[in-house]
Amino acid sequence: MSETEQIAPPEVAEDDNNVTDEESRLRPEFVERVLDAVEAGDVETARSLVEPLHPADVADLIELAARDEREGLVRALAGIVDADVLAEMNEHVREGLLDELEPQQVADIAGQLETDDAVALIEDLDAEEQQAVLERMEPDDRAAVEEALGYPEESAGRLMQRDVCAVPEHWNVGQVIDYLRATEELPADFWEVFVVNPSHHPVGTTKLSTILRTPRKTLVSDVMIEDQTLIPVDMDQEDVAYRFQKYALVSAAVVDDEGRLVGMITVDDIVHIIQEEAGEDVLLLSGVGDEGDINEPVTESYRSRVRWLVANLLTALVAAFVIRQFEDEISRLAVLAVLMPIVAGVGGNAGTQTLAVTVRAIATNQLTGSNRWRAVGREIRVALLNGLTIAVLIGLGVTLVLGSPSLGGVIAAAMLFNIIVAGLAGVLIPLTLERFGADPAVASSVFVTMMTDSVGFLAFLGLATAVGLGR
Amino acid sequence: MSETEQIAPPEVAEDDNNVTDEESRLRPEFVERVLDAVEAGDVETARSLVEPLHPADVADLIELAARDEREGLVRALAGIVDADVLAEMNEHVREGLLDELEPQQVADIAGQLETDDAVALIEDLDAEEQQAVLERMEPDDRAAVEEALGYPEESAGRLMQRDVCAVPEHWNVGQVIDYLRATEELPADFWEVFVVNPSHHPVGTTKLSTILRTPRKTLVSDVMIEDQTLIPVDMDQEDVAYRFQKYALVSAAVVDDEGRLVGMITVDDIVHIIQEEAGEDVLLLSGVGDEGDINEPVTESYRSRVRWLVANLLTALVAAFVIRQFEDEISRLAVLAVLMPIVAGVGGNAGTQTLAVTVRAIATNQLTGSNRWRAVGREIRVALLNGLTIAVLIGLGVTLVLGSPSLGGVIAAAMLFNIIVAGLAGVLIPLTLERFGADPAVASSVFVTMMTDSVGFLAFLGLATAVGLGR
Repeated sequence: MSETEQIAPPEVAEDDNNVTDEESRLRPEFVERVLDAVEAGDVETARSLVEPLHPADVADLIELAARDEREGLVRALAGIVDADVLAEMNEHVREGLLDELEPQQVADIAGQLETDDAVALIEDLDAEEQQAVLERMEPDDRAAVEEALGYPEESAGRLMQRDVCAVPEHWNVGQVIDYLRATEELPADFWEVFVVNPSHHPVGTTKLSTILRTPRKTLVSDVMIEDQTLIPVDMDQEDVAYRFQKYALVSAAVVDDEGRLVGMITVDDIVHIIQEEAGEDVLLLSGVGDEGDINEPVTESYRSRVRWLVANLLTALVAAFVIRQFEDEISRLAVLAVLMPIVAGVGGNAGTQTLAVTVRAIATNQLTGSNRWRAVGREIRVALLNGLTIAVLIGLGVTLVLGSPSLGGVIAAAMLFNIIVAGLAGVLIPLTLERFGADPAVASSVFVTMMTDSVGFLAFLGLATAVGLGR
Repeated sequence: MSETEQIAPPEVAEDDNNVTDEESRLRPEFVERVLDAVEAGDVETARSLVEPLHPADVADLIELAARDEREGLVRALAGIVDADVLAEMNEHVREGLLDELEPQQVADIAGQLETDDAVALIEDLDAEEQQAVLERMEPDDRAAVEEALGYPEESAGRLMQRDVCAVPEHWNVGQVIDYLRATEELPADFWEVFVVNPSHHPVGTTKLSTILRTPRKTLVSDVMIEDQTLIPVDMDQEDVAYRFQKYALVSAAVVDDEGRLVGMITVDDIVHIIQEEAGEDVLLLSGVGDEGDINEPVTESYRSRVRWLVANLLTALVAAFVIRQFEDEISRLAVLAVLMPIVAGVGGNAGTQTLAVTVRAIATNQLTGSNRWRAVGREIRVALLNGLTIAVLIGLGVTLVLGSPSLGGVIAAAMLFNIIVAGLAGVLIPLTLERFGADPAVASSVFVTMMTDSVGFLAFLGLATAVGLGR
C-alpha cells in the first residue's frame, strides 16, 4: 500500500487515501468535512475539497447529503455541480434539485450535455416543465432532444448520440484520418468509424486501432468488418444491453426503420443499464417495483410497496381459509397449529430458490423454448433430493421430540410433497408468465407463495386428519 | 421490419429472421434443426447452419442442447467450436466438455486465447488437470497463465491482458503511430495508449481518437489525460467492475504493488462481471449460492440449496417453539391458528421488501456510513405507512367477517407491530452484517424471516392472550 502512494500521481494518492475508500466509495469523514464547512458558511474550504473530484464522486456526495442539506451544498458548489455531475446523479435526487431551478437554468444545463444525457435529464420532468425547458434551448439542441423524446421510453433512440463518425466506402484510410483531423463536430468519445453507402446505410465498421495500423493508401472498405451488430432505433434498452454484453461491443451503430445510420450507442452508456436490469430482479421479486432505491421519496415507496403487501394479504387469506377447514382438528390437537407453519415456511423457501434461479435464467436468456422442459425436469430432481432430506430430518425430529411416529410420518410426507410442489411452482409459474408476455419477476412470487402456503397447510392438516390425528 | 430486410446485409437479415429472435436468443426451431441434423448423421447440414454464427451464439447452442446431445454436437462441429466459443460458454457446460478432452487438446485451445480467457478456462480445472494442461502449453503462454493464476481468484490480475500498448512520455504522436504500425505484438482490441515513465509507471493515457486527431509533431505527454483510473492488480473484480461503471471506462491500466504497468482490463471483459455481480443478489438472498444457474449439476444445486433449507428449518423451529407456548389458547380458540400465519406472512413480505432495497443500495454503494441512519429512518416511515394500511384492512376484515372487534383489534395491532419490526430488521440486519465484513446478501434473509415469523406469532398470540381471548 505504501509503495503505491509513492509512485501514484499526487491527485490519485490523495484521492485514494482521504476521499474514497478501497471500494471507491466516498469516506463518511470526507462527506462530513464538506457538509460541516458548508454549514459553517466556509464555502471556500468546501469548494477546495470538492474541486478535485470526478463528476461521479460529486454526484455521490450530493446523494449522500441529507435532503435538507442538499440545496445549501449545491449553492456552495455552484459551477462545480455542472451538467456532467447532474448526468451522473441518481434520478430521484436530480429531480429534487431540478425542481428548484428555473426552466432557463435547466435548458442551459441540458445544452452542455450530449444528446443522450440531455434526454435523460429532461425525460423525467413532467410535460409542462419539459415544454418550458425545450422552448428555452438552442434550436439545434432542442431539435435533437425532441427527436429523441419521440422514440419510446427506454429505447435505443433515447440512449444514442446523434453525432457519429461515418465515412463513405470509397475513401482510403488516409482520407479518413484527414477527415478526423479536420472535423470539429465529432462525438467526444468514439472507438470506431462507421462506413456507409451513398444512401447512408452502414456497410461496415472499422476500429480506430485498425485505422491507426493500416497504411494510408488502403481502402477503408478493404479493412472494415462487415459483420457488425446493428441496433434498431426502437429496440428496448434491455435488449440493447444484452447485445452489447453478448457480443462484447464497445460501441454500435443505431439504424432507423429504413436501415439508415442515425446514431451510435457506446458501452459507457450501457454499463449502468446492464447493472440496473440485472439488479432489478431482486427488487421486482420482492415487490418493491423497479425503481425502489433508497433515494425514492417515502410516499412513492409506500405506494409501490403497499400494493404488494395487499396482494400478499389476499394470498394469506387463502391460506387462512384452508386452515379454517381444520379448526376442529386443531382444537382437539393444538400441536398441529404448532407444526403447520414449518411445512409452509420451508416450502416457501424452496419455492423462492427455484424462482430466483428461473427468473435469472430467463433474464440472461439461458432459459428458452429449447431447454424449458429440461429445466423443469432438473428442478423436480433437485426438489426430490431436497424434499427427502428435509422430510427425514423433520420426520425424525417430530417423532423423537413429540414421541409421535404418526405425527412424524405425516409432517415428513407433507414436507416432501410441498417441496416438490414448490419446485414445480417455482419454475412453471415464471415460465408461464413469460410465455404470456408478462415479466416473470414481477408477479411470480405472489403465486408461488400462495401455492406453498396453501398446499403446505392443506397437505399437513389434510394428511393428519386422514390418518385420524386430531380426532 | 420488411424495409430493414431490404437494406441489411444478407447475413444479418437471415440471422434476424431465422436464427435468433428479437431478443437475440437462438430460436428453438433453429436449435432443433441443428440437433436433428446431428442425430441423423448429416454433419454437413449442421455445420452449414452453425458456421455463420457468432462464437457467442455457438456457445449458446451448445448450452441449449441436452447434456447427452452435447458431445455429438461438439464432435460434428469440430473446428467451429473453437477457443473463442469455449471462452463464451457457461462454465458448468464448459467444464463438462473439457472433462472429455485430453490435456494436450485443452492446452492447444488455451494457447489460442488471450491470457484472460485462457485463465478463465484453466482456473476451473482441478489442480491435477491444471498441472497437466500447463505442462503441455508453450513456455510463453504457460508463464503468462501461471503468473495470472498466482493472483487471487476473482482479482484484477486474473482478468487482465498482459499485452498492452505503452509508449514513453517523450515520444510525439507521429512516433506513436509509427510504433503502432510497426509492432506485431499488440492486443487484439485496444482503445487507448498508456504513457509510461522510464520505470514503467503509468503517467497518463491517450485515447486512440486523440492520437488520430492530433498533428504528428505534438508530444504525446501534451495531449495525454493525467487523471486516469488505475486498477491495483489484486483488486477484487467486483470493485473493478464498480470503477468501470462509475467512471465510464472503456479500458484501464492495471498496476502492480510498486505501481508499474503490468496489464490492461477492457470493458468487454467487465460487462459480464457487472451483470453477474448485480444479478447475484437475488440468488444469494434466495439461498441458492452465487453460481446457482440452470446449467449447474443437480447434485451441486442440491448441496448448496439444502444447506439453506436446513437453516430455514431451524428458524421455523424457533417460530414453532413460540407457538407452542400458546397451545392452550389455541385449543380453546382455534381461530387464532387460522389467523396467525397472516401476521407472520405479510410481515415476512414487508421484511423482504426492505431487505431487497437495502441489499441493492449497499451493493451499488449508494448506502454508506454517511447516510446509514437516514436510510433506517426512511424505512421506519415507510413501514409505519404500510403497517397502518394493512392493519386497518385486516382489522376491519376480521371484525366484520368473524364478528369479533377484539380479535380485529388484536390482529391489527400485531400486524402494525410486525411490519415495523420487519422494516427495522430488513435494514438493520444487512447493515450490521456488512459492518462486520459479511456479504449482506448471503445470510440476511434467514435472520429477517426468523424475526418476522417469531415476532408475528408472538405479538398476535401474546396480545390475544393478554386481552383474554382464548381463555
